[in-house]
Amino acid sequence: MVTAVRVAPSAASRARNLLRTVQYTHPPSCPCHSNPSHHHHHRSPTLADHVRRHMATPVDPSRQKEYAFEMAASSIRFGPGATKEVGMDFANMKAKRVCIVTDQTVSKLDAMKQAVEGLTREGIEFTVYDKVRVEPKDSSRSVKEAIAFAKPYNPDAFLAVGGGSVIDTAKLMNLYTVFPDADFLDFVNAPLGKGLPVDRPLKPLVAVPTTAGTGSETTGTAIFDLVSKKAKTGIAHRNLKPTLGICDPINTRTMPSAVHASSGLDVLCHSLESWTAIPYNERTPRPTNPINRPAYQGANPISDIFSLQALRSTVKYLPRAVRDPDDFEAQSQMLLAATLAGVGFGNAGVHLCHGMSYPISSQNPGYKHSGYAVDHPIIPHGVSVAVTAPAVFRFTAASNPDRHLAAAEAFGVDISNVKRESAGEVLGEALANFLVQLGDQPRGLKDLGFKAGDIDSLVEGTIPQQRVLALAPTLSGELEAEKAELRGLLEESMDY
Amino acid sequence: MVTAVRVAPSAASRARNLLRTVQYTHPPSCPCHSNPSHHHHHRSPTLADHVRRHMATPVDPSRQKEYAFEMAASSIRFGPGATKEVGMDFANMKAKRVCIVTDQTVSKLDAMKQAVEGLTREGIEFTVYDKVRVEPKDSSRSVKEAIAFAKPYNPDAFLAVGGGSVIDTAKLMNLYTVFPDADFLDFVNAPLGKGLPVDRPLKPLVAVPTTAGTGSETTGTAIFDLVSKKAKTGIAHRNLKPTLGICDPINTRTMPSAVHASSGLDVLCHSLESWTAIPYNERTPRPTNPINRPAYQGANPISDIFSLQALRSTVKYLPRAVRDPDDFEAQSQMLLAATLAGVGFGNAGVHLCHGMSYPISSQNPGYKHSGYAVDHPIIPHGVSVAVTAPAVFRFTAASNPDRHLAAAEAFGVDISNVKRESAGEVLGEALANFLVQLGDQPRGLKDLGFKAGDIDSLVEGTIPQQRVLALAPTLSGELEAEKAELRGLLEESMDY
Repeated sequence: MVTAVRVAPSAASRARNLLRTVQYTHPPSCPCHSNPSHHHHHRSPTLADHVRRHMATPVDPSRQKEYAFEMAASSIRFGPGATKEVGMDFANMKAKRVCIVTDQTVSKLDAMKQAVEGLTREGIEFTVYDKVRVEPKDSSRSVKEAIAFAKPYNPDAFLAVGGGSVIDTAKLMNLYTVFPDADFLDFVNAPLGKGLPVDRPLKPLVAVPTTAGTGSETTGTAIFDLVSKKAKTGIAHRNLKPTLGICDPINTRTMPSAVHASSGLDVLCHSLESWTAIPYNERTPRPTNPINRPAYQGANPISDIFSLQALRSTVKYLPRAVRDPDDFEAQSQMLLAATLAGVGFGNAGVHLCHGMSYPISSQNPGYKHSGYAVDHPIIPHGVSVAVTAPAVFRFTAASNPDRHLAAAEAFGVDISNVKRESAGEVLGEALANFLVQLGDQPRGLKDLGFKAGDIDSLVEGTIPQQRVLALAPTLSGELEAEKAELRGLLEESMDY
Repeated sequence: MVTAVRVAPSAASRARNLLRTVQYTHPPSCPCHSNPSHHHHHRSPTLADHVRRHMATPVDPSRQKEYAFEMAASSIRFGPGATKEVGMDFANMKAKRVCIVTDQTVSKLDAMKQAVEGLTREGIEFTVYDKVRVEPKDSSRSVKEAIAFAKPYNPDAFLAVGGGSVIDTAKLMNLYTVFPDADFLDFVNAPLGKGLPVDRPLKPLVAVPTTAGTGSETTGTAIFDLVSKKAKTGIAHRNLKPTLGICDPINTRTMPSAVHASSGLDVLCHSLESWTAIPYNERTPRPTNPINRPAYQGANPISDIFSLQALRSTVKYLPRAVRDPDDFEAQSQMLLAATLAGVGFGNAGVHLCHGMSYPISSQNPGYKHSGYAVDHPIIPHGVSVAVTAPAVFRFTAASNPDRHLAAAEAFGVDISNVKRESAGEVLGEALANFLVQLGDQPRGLKDLGFKAGDIDSLVEGTIPQQRVLALAPTLSGELEAEKAELRGLLEESMDY
């Protein structure tokens, strides 16, 4: 397998495409699939092959490809009304002192009422931190304020009630309460931070999502932006994931239609990006200690199941959920899809759409998305992610045409007579149509106010997202070439 | 929803079939799906409906149907050679004193060598308990011996290396080391035991399966038989599940072909039974505390994904894994399928095949399955489960023809022109053909040595399996009628 990374790029990418085509028909359960000869000779590898490839002492792990994947997800409870059980959950885990994390808007909603009543009924002491800000300009500042609040209270458990920002903030309050002496950057993803693994179990965290989007209730990821480094980054480790996610479809009914739409587009890209990410056994380096195996490890046979199911549900139910505020079934299915996509990307990763979305949101020229009741310009996360999707999947299709065709099929395209070379065209068009029909979406970066002159700084803002770019198929990996490829994607995304 | 359980059986079952037909096309994400009127009027329930149905104070929980489901699974690491990481895993969790659980056969295999070397390399103290017996006549006795060994050693973590019996025994050693004063029957499933919930977290348990069958590495279930009560039973609670399952396809290569076959048939039935179990929102009673929500909760939208994928993989790869000992890809895929099926049935449950398999194995008239190197008669678990499968799914098809047709399709049957009334016939035949083509399988209870006169005692041995029978669709639920139905299934299973 070491040799595989030494062969010429063109041959390597041909090999990878071949590999991933096969992987589509039967997902890799073993890194021998990354040995192209296996597919040429149509013979199954023998134990001897394995001993040769796996049992031999590693030559140089940094050059070696991954050979295993690890799936971890929070326990998930799903059901309308399940929020009222949360007090009993904390009583069952013998919690004495709970820190509830929420934001100003959610603090007034029924979900919070249920949570507070539940804890009160069980006679459990709690305090409420309701100052989380949604997609603020410098979320790391608001995160640090939240951590400063949690440390002195020193709770023995956390309860997050809200959207992705709230749940992510609660994860970080939990992390830095357990590691009170750690420097904030210690756990932040490299290269911006030290990217240290979370090598101690955290305190119990129960997450009650009030939006159907981030899937944060199932993942070990917390995203925020570091204005100091002019980049959106985060902390990602399995030990960060909530103990339990309580998905109560009644709690997402309070979302305005515009929030349904943009959070649903986040789900759409989570599923598409994790489904098309490089296979786990193409990722380098192979970790020398399992604790260093990243959660964003590339597509694998288990994340694939979640990602494709979430994609199909989103295509089917998101338009209904956006159109009809009384369509409770569609809203319930979208909450489920958001959670399934969370398990998918939480164990496989996202790539180009998310990588470029961070600078798009933070370099917002002044766009204020309709239907968002905020007093400042905002490009909602889901909108900034979806705006490049048509260009992105046109670009990535060559890496694995069959997977991209399967995605197009999920959009209802009849692919029976589509050539594999056209996979990107077909999927890109299906995506563009989906976005247009969803309504109220920008038809490209132009509609967000970006000019041709902004593209270079968007590229510069994307380059630091190595953790996700590393999972992008067909990206060359060499810095200058990569910048050119990103520039091309952003130019193509100016309008669709 | 209370009214739904009061209507006449025929109407209720019509309603259920209607419900489950719809559920098949879009799985229930909300108990309102069990309100037939929803499907008659084709209108989505409104929040008002929900407030009426869910937020109102429960009339009588024991009469009320479930409204939520909870998914929990162990973390899973999958990859050839991953066993050698296990020492680092215990070092990462700061374990100081590990109890390794295995059996006489596995203790000599490379999997154990890897585990012992891994712990030694990390300088972690450990002891080995290698006296677990595979499918013994009274496993509760051997389980109690194992517990008596673990208590004085008082490890801070457990490592199970072996098949289902080994992993299940390790779960019980862990449980009763954490609850040293508990009576053995306290946690055993009712009605045989008290069925108390496991209300404290257990010590870390890492499971390294050496067979591709039970999926025990992902579940909170431990099965054993109580000769005192002449029944196979077990303990099932989410807190019993391993911390991590290390699925290393190299470890299953040591399985003889006959063990590949019978453990694969266990996977086949896990997936088919969980896929066809009653929907979670048809189960009663609704738990008044989430800790009492059973792991065997009925089919739900997440277990469905796992069960159907596991079924498809098993049909595709089991015959190859049995035929060719060098087909490493098929063996890897079967290990993955076993784990996926484990997540499926571990969160949905099994029903009739497993319910009847317990008396079939324990009342063995003297059958010794070929290819099993044991000195006593044995009906391997997978064989005892599969032998009734053709009859069982003929019987259950009426509850949800579309799901049974989807299962038949997974066997390669072209269902495009099959009538829904014929779903059971078609699936039963597909199953029988699959078993015959797999080879070396009994063609019914007759081949196992059972006579018509044995059926009554097989029925008597099945009746105590209420925990699984409660999940069987189309079973009447009234004792005498249920006995007649079981008798019918066993008679039909005498030969196929």
